This record gives sequence, C-alpha cells and structure tokens, in this order.
Amino acid sequence: MAFLKVVPLEDAMKIVNSMKLEPKIEEVPLEEALGRVLAEDVVSPIDVPPFDRATVDGYAVKAEDTFMASEAEPVRLKVVGEVHAGDFPDFVLDAGTCVYISTGAPLPQGADAVIQFEDVEREGDEVVIYKPAYPTMGVMKRGVDIPKGKLILRSGTRLGFKETALLSAIGMARVKVYKKPRVAVISTGSEIVLPGQELEPGRIYDINGRAVSDAIRELGGEACFLGVARDEEKRVAELILQGIAECDMVLLSGGASGGMRDLTSSIIERLGRVYVHGIAIQPGKPTIIGEIDGKPVIGLPGYPTSCLTNFTLLVAPLLRKLIGRETEVRKTRKKLAHKVFSVKGRRQFLPVRIEGDTAVPILKGSGAVTSFVEADGFIEVPENVEILEAGEDVEVTLFG
Amino acid sequence: MAFLKVVPLEDAMKIVNSMKLEPKIEEVPLEEALGRVLAEDVVSPIDVPPFDRATVDGYAVKAEDTFMASEAEPVRLKVVGEVHAGDFPDFVLDAGTCVYISTGAPLPQGADAVIQFEDVEREGDEVVIYKPAYPTMGVMKRGVDIPKGKLILRSGTRLGFKETALLSAIGMARVKVYKKPRVAVISTGSEIVLPGQELEPGRIYDINGRAVSDAIRELGGEACFLGVARDEEKRVAELILQGIAECDMVLLSGGASGGMRDLTSSIIERLGRVYVHGIAIQPGKPTIIGEIDGKPVIGLPGYPTSCLTNFTLLVAPLLRKLIGRETEVRKTRKKLAHKVFSVKGRRQFLPVRIEGDTAVPILKGSGAVTSFVEADGFIEVPENVEILEAGEDVEVTLFG
Repeated sequence: MAFLKVVPLEDAMKIVNSMKLEPKIEEVPLEEALGRVLAEDVVSPIDVPPFDRATVDGYAVKAEDTFMASEAEPVRLKVVGEVHAGDFPDFVLDAGTCVYISTGAPLPQGADAVIQFEDVEREGDEVVIYKPAYPTMGVMKRGVDIPKGKLILRSGTRLGFKETALLSAIGMARVKVYKKPRVAVISTGSEIVLPGQELEPGRIYDINGRAVSDAIRELGGEACFLGVARDEEKRVAELILQGIAECDMVLLSGGASGGMRDLTSSIIERLGRVYVHGIAIQPGKPTIIGEIDGKPVIGLPGYPTSCLTNFTLLVAPLLRKLIGRETEVRKTRKKLAHKVFSVKGRRQFLPVRIEGDTAVPILKGSGAVTSFVEADGFIEVPENVEILEAGEDVEVTLFG
Repeated sequence: MAFLKVVPLEDAMKIVNSMKLEPKIEEVPLEEALGRVLAEDVVSPIDVPPFDRATVDGYAVKAEDTFMASEAEPVRLKVVGEVHAGDFPDFVLDAGTCVYISTGAPLPQGADAVIQFEDVEREGDEVVIYKPAYPTMGVMKRGVDIPKGKLILRSGTRLGFKETALLSAIGMARVKVYKKPRVAVISTGSEIVLPGQELEPGRIYDINGRAVSDAIRELGGEACFLGVARDEEKRVAELILQGIAECDMVLLSGGASGGMRDLTSSIIERLGRVYVHGIAIQPGKPTIIGEIDGKPVIGLPGYPTSCLTNFTLLVAPLLRKLIGRETEVRKTRKKLAHKVFSVKGRRQFLPVRIEGDTAVPILKGSGAVTSFVEADGFIEVPENVEILEAGEDVEVTLFG
C-alpha cells in the first residue's frame, strides 16, 4: 500500500492547525446578524439616550422653582407648552414656568426635572406642586445608558438577540461578522444511497453526510453536501474538485472499506498532497489529511461515532477558528458511571452519554448509528490503561 | 381614559393561553430539518443494518469450519470469490470455502463470521486459519442497530445533527415538523427611527423591534418586522392589518408615551377586541392584549427590559406551544447576590444577571438598554415584600 503515513493524534491536530486558513470577514445588514460572530470591536458613535429624556409622563420644571413647595404652601408654575416623544423643543424654559412632557420626550433647555402628573394638580394653565423636585428626578440624562465612544461589544462575540438589540440602539445598520466557512461534504462508498432512494440489496442509507453537514451548520459554517461518490476514481475526483472550486474545505466521510479509503487517498495525492493516512487511535484510525490548491481535504472514518469523534478533534477547531471563536474543543469533567475495559497498547476513544455528574460509557461499537445518537461526547483511554474504574474522574470531550 | 382593564399577571397569562391557536404541521426535506421540532413519532421502516454486515476486511466463513483450527493444525479454506461494500452476493457459501469480504459488505448466505485478514495467511486460492472463529464474529447482524418497527424519535424532539443523521440512516427524505409561527413585529412611537436612518433631534434608535424579532427567531419562530409606526392612527392601523393578513400573531413594542399606548389600544378595540390594557406588575404595566380576526395582538411595554420580561411571560410560552415544545417559561433557582429593596404594595420584576450560583440584581432601571443586555432573566418581588436579603433563595425566570 502506498499510503502508510500513520501519525499520532497530536501530530494530526498540529498539521490541521498549521494549514493556512484565515478567517474572512463580511458586512451584513443587522437584520441578518443574529447568530453570527462579530468581527470588529464596536464603539458607540452616539450617546444613548441622545438627549436628557423624560422617564415619566408629567411636567418638566426647573427643580429650583419647586424647592420651597409643601402641602401647606404649594408652588404654582405656568404651563407654557407640551413636548411629546419624537418632538424636539427649541425653546428655553423660563423660571416660574413648566411644560407638559410625555415619557421619552427630550427636556427643553432650562428644565432639569420631571414631576409625574399623578403628583400635581392642574388648574387651568397652571400646575400646583406640593413637593419639591430634585434635579434629574424623572430624567434619564444624555449618554447615561451608553456614552458616545464606549466599547460596547468585542470582536468574537456571538450575536444573540440582546446583542443585535444593542447594535440597533446605537444605530448600526450593518455589522462586520466572520464569513461562514463553506465546507463541501462528500459521502464515499459504493454501499451508500441517499434517503428517498430505493434501498437495493447490499446498500445502506447515508448517515455521515447528513451528520457532518448538519454539525457544520450547528457550528456556524455553511455545508455544501455534494452527494455520494461510489468507488469510481473519476466520480470521486470530480466531486473533490467541485468542492475545492466552490468551498473553503472538503470533507469526505469514508466508505467502510479499506479499498475506498485507499482510492480516496490516491486521488488526493494525485490532485494535491496527502499529509496523513491513518491516525494512531482506536477507533478512528482510517483518517486522511491532505491539501489541494491550499485547501484542506479531510477524509473521516466511515463509522458514525468515529466520524463524529474525528470531526470534533480535527475539523470543529478549524471551523471555530474560521468563524473567530475559540479554537479549543469543548471539555467537561465527569465521574465514570461504570467500569470499562480497554486493550493495552491501544489509544481508545469511547463514546459516553452525560447524565448529571456522570459519564455513562456506550459500548455498542462505533459502527452503530444508535451509539452515536445516544452519545454526547467521548473519553480517552490512554495506551497504557486497561481498566477505568467506576467513579473515576474522566474528561469528556463534547461532540461538535 | 377608555381602557382601564388592568388585570393581575396570572389573568393576563390565562387570557393569552386561552386564545385559539393550534400548532400547524408541515413536511420539509430532511436537508432543511435541522433545528426544527418533530411533529410525528418516527418508527423505523427498515432494519439497520438491512443485512448481516462485515465489520472488518477479511474472509467470510462458516464458523463451524474453523472450530478445529489451531496454530499446530491450521484449517485451510478455498477462496471462492470476493464481496465488496455495495455488492449483494447471490450465492450460498459451501462448507470448506470462504470469500474475501470488505467492511460494510453483506455476508453471503451460509456464512456467519468474518475473520480479519491480518489473522490469516493467504496461499494462492486458499486461506490458512490458525484460530477458531465463532458465529457473529466480525459481523453486525441485520437489525441489531435499529430493528424495523422501532420507535426511534418522538414528536416534540428538537432535531439536532444527531437526530437528522438518525432519520437519514432509516432513509427518511422528508419529515413532519411544526410550522414556524409567523409573528409580525411593529415598533410604535414617534421618537423611534431605524438604524441607518439619520437620528434627528428628539429621536432614538429602535431597540425593541430588533430585540423582539430576534428573540422570536431564537425561539424557533419567524419574525416579520414591519417597521416603525409613528403615532398616526392611519399608519398604526395599516401596519396592524398588514400583520393580521400575513402572520399568525401581531406584536407591538410600545412607544414610551401613554398617548401612543392609548392610540394603539383604541385601534385594536376598533378592529377587534381588547381584553387587557394594563397588567398589575412593575415595571411592565403598559401591556395590551387583544385579538383581531381570531389572531392575538399583543402590545408590549416600550422600556426594553419590561418589553423582554413581558415577552418572556406572555409571548414566549405561546410561541413554544405553537412549535410543539414545552409551554412553561424556563426557571432556575439561585442565591441573591446582594440585598434589594422594593416598594410595598407593588409586585416588582427585577432584572438579574446569573453568575455561578448567584443572581446579581441589575439596578439601572428598565429604561436602560444596557440593563437589558446584561440581564439573563428576572426575579419577582411580591407585593407584600419590601426587602430581599443577600443569600436568599430566588427563582430566576430566564429571558426568551
């Protein structure tokens, strides 16, 4: 066999990380920004609120006019006008006068407090005030919520509805976000057919094409599923080249058989370069890492759990890097729910389901689609370990 | 004022929940099912795998032919053919013979074990076997992963990448999911302008329109933001009617002023019916619940935190019901980080940020957009309570 470049997992991860892939940035309308990752630090270009704003419906006054007010000796102020939300008062309030003002409206110059209308009496064109107002009462001062020039969101922030609302509040109609990396996904294997097609004898329905495509989408990438390549050299090469032309990266989920993998590897070698053919982990060994025209081409194992495990270890960090998020795989510490046995001399990755504080090993084998559906992630059993005891502390790497 | 239908929160929630809104179901291609909620129980129409399948590359044998094999006295079997993944062998294996088989390929009739090729020696058209094989060795039996007729996913399940992969594995090309409820969103208030527009004196940028639209989308609904309605009766009525015509529900996020709210309420009263105008909570009182042509029309308060609080209490449960998910608001128990004071006789909702096991009250006031951005949810301070002590157990309702 021509390709026996079996390497340790860490070397494979280093090779993938050293590939020259830079995050790309695009500007999108704010309405399309939800769920995207911010690619710029955002500084507010305005004061919020942009003016001294009434926070109650009532009367805008000069507070000092009311300092002497009491139940026994109320103060009377002349009402000289009205200011509604959306208006902009272009006059200056004189001593001894006030204006009716609605919540959200700007205070006229000279006014520094708003007394809510429940607290005064209106008599003709006057209001009767029984209690002193203090400056800023009933007022949100200009810029107190967000001062102009303040850094409000950092590059790398995922934009949820609170963040898009914040960007709206400062008037940003467009925002720079990381471009979604486009990933071509190809299922290989002569036994694979797509859902909706007839299942001829000897065939099985595609699992990995859908799993990998949707995992890419959940991570924030764009998946282009190119379909199934049977083991004809011409067809596999065509689909790989289509992926290279249209996308930033090509993922092949392996056919089950060794022959299919060797075919895939020889095609990548012919069109570009193969760095890795085989990773020293169990399961998940049949993994290919190559490059065509400077774009990564990664062949994942055919077994669903192995496929997803290696996707998590090798591809997800790359995708997260491309969308400007942390590149580390996501890990959590749990207690092993029951004893498991491993094979000495083999570095094993075991799928587990998380239940509260425990990690429950799933022992159906990596060929089963159900073991992959039940699993939340996997634990590593090092080469020199044969038994992990129940209750032992384990580090679970979460899928995706 | 014509509309003084102030009701307790519980009554408002009951009125919203009693509105005749039924979840709708649609069928989508599996490629578009990610993130949707399943609207049918799914039973597998096939066995997975659909045939006895080789799990290693090697030789398919009758196990009993190998029972006597040993290092000293190996067994020799004649290789009579090859079966590759995707093939379907239409012959029966005779005693004393075997076939080369690749991983994923179906076992021929008569074979019941696969010995991996590393464990045998090939000599011409024979393989030399040094160890007995047992039946099912190297084989995944038909239906062992998912038997035909098994319930694999229940209605109400959110479809992540593992679930879509499972549906692919059983060949489902289309799947029934809950239709996304369409919600019209209108920002009202003469002071509101949209991002990208010039901020004239006295105006502020829209916050709630974006917040509510994107919160709806995060919940799994479809938001149709119809824009800003200034306080002209004609325009507000037009936008409400457009929302009623195009969507399942209309949400107005209130202008700050009482006048705008009364205008909105009188329009809804004219076009349909107003059930509630005012809820006895603080902040968040200025809330309108009505109905036009059998569709809910809900006016939320203008202050961002109040708007989101009432969205969480009144609208989110309705949306979750419409997409077939649990209708309860999401709650969590935390310890209060520091003492807070309330006003006796007022039922208050206080925004809080969650930090580990504690809920940190945010005391900027519900008018501040920053308090809403920092908050994860809110706690309730009942009418008869004036002080909540630091360390007290509180129930936090999460936003959205």
